[in-house]
Amino acid sequence: MALADRWLLPEGVDEALPEQAAKIEHLRRTLLNLHASWGYHLVIPPLLEYLDSLLTGAGSDLENETFKVIDQLSGRLLGIRADFTSQVARIDAHCLKEEGVQRLSYCGSVLRTMPAGLDGTRSPIQLGAEIYGHGGVESDIEVLSLMLETLSATGLSNTVLDLGHVDIVNGVLTACDLNTDQKNKLIELYKAKDLPELDRYVEELALLDSQAQWLVGLPRLCGGVEVLERAAELFVDVSDSISRALALLEEVSNAVAARFPSVGLHFDLSDLVSYNYHTGLVFAAYLPGHGNAIARGGRYNNIGQVFGRPRPATGFSTDVKALVGLVNLQIEKPKTVLSPVSVNDALWKKVNSLRAEGYRVVEMLEETYTGDADFKLDLIAGTWQLIPV
Amino acid sequence: MALADRWLLPEGVDEALPEQAAKIEHLRRTLLNLHASWGYHLVIPPLLEYLDSLLTGAGSDLENETFKVIDQLSGRLLGIRADFTSQVARIDAHCLKEEGVQRLSYCGSVLRTMPAGLDGTRSPIQLGAEIYGHGGVESDIEVLSLMLETLSATGLSNTVLDLGHVDIVNGVLTACDLNTDQKNKLIELYKAKDLPELDRYVEELALLDSQAQWLVGLPRLCGGVEVLERAAELFVDVSDSISRALALLEEVSNAVAARFPSVGLHFDLSDLVSYNYHTGLVFAAYLPGHGNAIARGGRYNNIGQVFGRPRPATGFSTDVKALVGLVNLQIEKPKTVLSPVSVNDALWKKVNSLRAEGYRVVEMLEETYTGDADFKLDLIAGTWQLIPV
Repeated sequence: MALADRWLLPEGVDEALPEQAAKIEHLRRTLLNLHASWGYHLVIPPLLEYLDSLLTGAGSDLENETFKVIDQLSGRLLGIRADFTSQVARIDAHCLKEEGVQRLSYCGSVLRTMPAGLDGTRSPIQLGAEIYGHGGVESDIEVLSLMLETLSATGLSNTVLDLGHVDIVNGVLTACDLNTDQKNKLIELYKAKDLPELDRYVEELALLDSQAQWLVGLPRLCGGVEVLERAAELFVDVSDSISRALALLEEVSNAVAARFPSVGLHFDLSDLVSYNYHTGLVFAAYLPGHGNAIARGGRYNNIGQVFGRPRPATGFSTDVKALVGLVNLQIEKPKTVLSPVSVNDALWKKVNSLRAEGYRVVEMLEETYTGDADFKLDLIAGTWQLIPV
Repeated sequence: MALADRWLLPEGVDEALPEQAAKIEHLRRTLLNLHASWGYHLVIPPLLEYLDSLLTGAGSDLENETFKVIDQLSGRLLGIRADFTSQVARIDAHCLKEEGVQRLSYCGSVLRTMPAGLDGTRSPIQLGAEIYGHGGVESDIEVLSLMLETLSATGLSNTVLDLGHVDIVNGVLTACDLNTDQKNKLIELYKAKDLPELDRYVEELALLDSQAQWLVGLPRLCGGVEVLERAAELFVDVSDSISRALALLEEVSNAVAARFPSVGLHFDLSDLVSYNYHTGLVFAAYLPGHGNAIARGGRYNNIGQVFGRPRPATGFSTDVKALVGLVNLQIEKPKTVLSPVSVNDALWKKVNSLRAEGYRVVEMLEETYTGDADFKLDLIAGTWQLIPV
């Protein structure tokens, strides 16, 4: 779309014209088919919900991002969804109520009050998949694998996977006996990756030497798989939850390395970018040279608690529209046939049988047709025949 | 969905659980493929726009139906679309700018402040198609035919088509030399189909005999194709626009009768249900026993004028979610295979090749799997094999 047209649309809101729309639709189908072939069932949550259902467990980030309207019927506040996660959690908890593992997938528009993500969009087409009812590392590995297959099916081959675990930051902060203000200040510094200020602040806290080393060492645990060994040395015997988190990261990274040898592995043990509903493994996929994640996910156990059914949960999501912008999708065009307007029964039957066979048949409403065509329909010796043009 | 769950969702807002979601997705693809085979190009307009763009040419009905939010970035009023028509008109006028005939299709969620339509929904999944740049009867017949093919591809065979033309009511009111108040009162009575009050009011107006006959005769022009003959007699020489409208209705009904012999034809020449942007032929499809239209459309020339490009236009729309509720769609289920969690390379390769072949392969995260399965993967003599279960 030319820049001159943009004034007509709000910032961060865009539309897909035919060429791009065909690519989005094609990728949407490809990816939903992939998810179905892994056993994931599509659900279609509503665009609009009572605000309190929509924000359940999602934290204040999502509240600020959600457009709100008044319901004329109930007088209650409604929200346009800015994310699918709590909707799918509600469906698992309240509508399906099945025992055992539930695999769900979704694809649809979300709206956000402020631009975000790869392309500063406020109207992504979010696609994702989630597993409910399994708390083990196997489901972490499954959704992570499905995310990487999703990117691979899109045509992205050079992805880098970022891995982390929320129990590491939490475990270190807990082990240092800090008050809430101190914890929040440290979290802020980790998010900002402001290492000089972090070092200064930790010195000011006057903790035990070992504790100070944990706090300043944490954001330096960032890099390839060797990070896990360095972390195991630094945090030896700090807490069981940290040891378990490191063991889980190792198991996950071994599985990913075996299944997806071409994917780069990166660890950032102080990473706190994602929404604060996560409870375990967190992960994000990047492309070299792009600052924003192209897909992200993680574990968020017990999100369904407010709907009466706390269950282990893990999942990922991405933006189909952003993915289409990153690859050069080639779509096979159907053969196009030009036909006179079918005023008679024989031509009408011929046109519709060609359409059913996969041809695109365009009736010539005007004398001059401007599009490309492969064939035209001509009446030859009493029958309608395809003539190459 | 059980009634007990409904309290969680606002009135007129629903969600599709796996079984229904699969049907909606299946029908969506079938219908978009159909439209593509007719030469229609998919576009994906944004969910959110500046309110003034969104309401262009659509009239006050749509303004009341549109949810409005404030844009934090621009301070301007935004609307969540309640209809696609003006969005697609903007795309034709402003973004594509192509000369000649433009065929566009769309499918997506819309939101309405008040329940409407077949099932009192506020969140339909609207699907439709439009032709820009052709003003002749051929394009009326084309979109009408595509609407009937859309319903037929859905599996609906017993549709009744309602035909009308806005120039007939307009022509009669103009020919009677009425003031605006009188015209509005008559339009109100036609909409309400209140014949006794109409007769009384027309008598009160003390018009010429012939004019009174036109006004009271109009809402009685309602029934099968013989209505057109009665109308031609009643309105002989009233105005050219009425004669042209009747000739167009006859041409359209002949074409529909030839192409779709099983579709019932019904005329209601005082019908004024549709949005007030229509300028010519209007039509709606009904099912016997259902009071609300399942699809509707018509001509709305010059809707793109405010975007700088008035063009002839005609189109139709329907609600995919409502259509799914009217038919018993049978979807072929893929063969389901249960697999152990693939910890080794040979099994991982086997699982993914089966998925690529069209199987649904589910990794057994838990001991007992509750879903249906056709096969399981077992390691026999060193290779992974499909065993029927």
